[in-house]
Amino acid sequence: MSLLVVGSVAFDTVETPFGQAEEVLGGSATYFSTSASYFTDVNLVAVVGEDFPDKHINFLRLRGINLDGLERTGGKTFRWQGKYGYDLNEAHTLNTELNVFEHFKPKLPEHYRDADVVFLANIDPDLQRDVLKQANKPKVVAADTMNFWIESKKDSLIETLKYVDILLINDSEARQLTGEPNLVKAARTITSYGPKTLLIKQGEYGVTMFNSHGIFIAPAYPLENVFDPTGAGDTFAGGFMGYLANTMDFSDTSLRRGTVMGSVMASFNVEDFSLNKIRDLDYKEIESRFREFKRLSHFEDI
Amino acid sequence: MSLLVVGSVAFDTVETPFGQAEEVLGGSATYFSTSASYFTDVNLVAVVGEDFPDKHINFLRLRGINLDGLERTGGKTFRWQGKYGYDLNEAHTLNTELNVFEHFKPKLPEHYRDADVVFLANIDPDLQRDVLKQANKPKVVAADTMNFWIESKKDSLIETLKYVDILLINDSEARQLTGEPNLVKAARTITSYGPKTLLIKQGEYGVTMFNSHGIFIAPAYPLENVFDPTGAGDTFAGGFMGYLANTMDFSDTSLRRGTVMGSVMASFNVEDFSLNKIRDLDYKEIESRFREFKRLSHFEDI
Repeated sequence: MSLLVVGSVAFDTVETPFGQAEEVLGGSATYFSTSASYFTDVNLVAVVGEDFPDKHINFLRLRGINLDGLERTGGKTFRWQGKYGYDLNEAHTLNTELNVFEHFKPKLPEHYRDADVVFLANIDPDLQRDVLKQANKPKVVAADTMNFWIESKKDSLIETLKYVDILLINDSEARQLTGEPNLVKAARTITSYGPKTLLIKQGEYGVTMFNSHGIFIAPAYPLENVFDPTGAGDTFAGGFMGYLANTMDFSDTSLRRGTVMGSVMASFNVEDFSLNKIRDLDYKEIESRFREFKRLSHFEDI
Repeated sequence: MSLLVVGSVAFDTVETPFGQAEEVLGGSATYFSTSASYFTDVNLVAVVGEDFPDKHINFLRLRGINLDGLERTGGKTFRWQGKYGYDLNEAHTLNTELNVFEHFKPKLPEHYRDADVVFLANIDPDLQRDVLKQANKPKVVAADTMNFWIESKKDSLIETLKYVDILLINDSEARQLTGEPNLVKAARTITSYGPKTLLIKQGEYGVTMFNSHGIFIAPAYPLENVFDPTGAGDTFAGGFMGYLANTMDFSDTSLRRGTVMGSVMASFNVEDFSLNKIRDLDYKEIESRFREFKRLSHFEDI
């Protein structure tokens, strides 16, 4: 089934305690669609500048991602520069150059409009609703956001959430959005805004899913070498939504499996800079790590 | 089977964002033995002052805990005063009065010496080895420690670890002990010191167990009302060790179940101040929460 993603395609310059990478491929839509491409067809909507090289376009095409919605315009591509300390859960933004992303107005090509599943990556909540207006009643809408929009456009974000079935945010954003330090209470408030399913991403501590069936907690994979957490959240979302869009089964059982699949993909992604590790995985590696997640969290009844 | 615990019995004065409690029953051995008493016989070794009221003695007796090793001496009982902010993972110590605990020399009553399982709660690592010298070859030795001993008596602590089968510490202590920020690497270093099984407690993020079979991650129970985390680690240890001492099965399957049982007991404990919530649980409540942990972390294979 078809999965539509709207978000950013960018160049990242990243420094971690383990090394650095300069002007490498990044952006929420890039990580999301690469991750989702292992499971389903992906239609991408984003904007890049004239400095965006063909090799990146070719890579995304090779992964089977439809780029009819990737606008190429005069100017420079969005750039982000960040640094991580040993606490890899927290990125310190050193510089952001919005460039062509500043005036991004997502336009859905005609053949994108019937998408079954839509993922609104972290962009202006006004634009997120614009995208939904262009789509023909998608069956499921999922979204991400960030502290910047919670601070600057909270009302618009809450308006967007009315149309969102699944929200994926991190724990500090959930607390910030609701003013509630307790995550269980914060989750209740957020689901009252619209999303029936809420996934709270907690970095190295895993993901907690809240829905009407209860709570599910997926651990993060305990890695010896976490090189670069950039894009982990979007890679998670890509694995999660890609798995669900492929099955079109949104039962609790399937949502739990999808949560683990997202965690599997994110665990690969953080093992190297940029998309290096998830560029060309073997599906057997994905299945094998899924089984490792099972061993990681399985225990017998008493 | 018999479980021996050596640690502190204390009065705690605690302030959390949700209330405060003054001079309430606390101490590592108290939390541990109360929690373990739901599963097995417990022999307690600790010291209290002449100000320690009979009502607390009676409570521990009622829970079936053997107090022949509880020394009562002239002077005041150990007192701890602490405060928690909204980040309930971190206690801020406001005051510590060691009192009779300052010159505590654990003495094992004759009939304690054949204990099958020994738990060395957080005390001076020199004393931890003293206790082991008094015991007659216990089948399993488990221990806890804290940042204070890692800073002030690291060599002695590492000497103690040679005799420890199962170490339970929190994540910041594991990092501090090894100088290694990555927990998987820190775990490898710690198990090289002696303990074949290592449990790293991560507060609201659960517990990660490392042993020769691999890694197991138990989530923490997502509670809407965490009143007071004081004693959560010792209550965890009591449930874990109590379950294992009862079965005397130290296989990976049993260690995993024990880890969840510890998490079950800790999840009750944080719901109220002091030992209020774990004073008088029904075993059915414990089983029921164990099943909730199962629902919390279960997912189907793909």
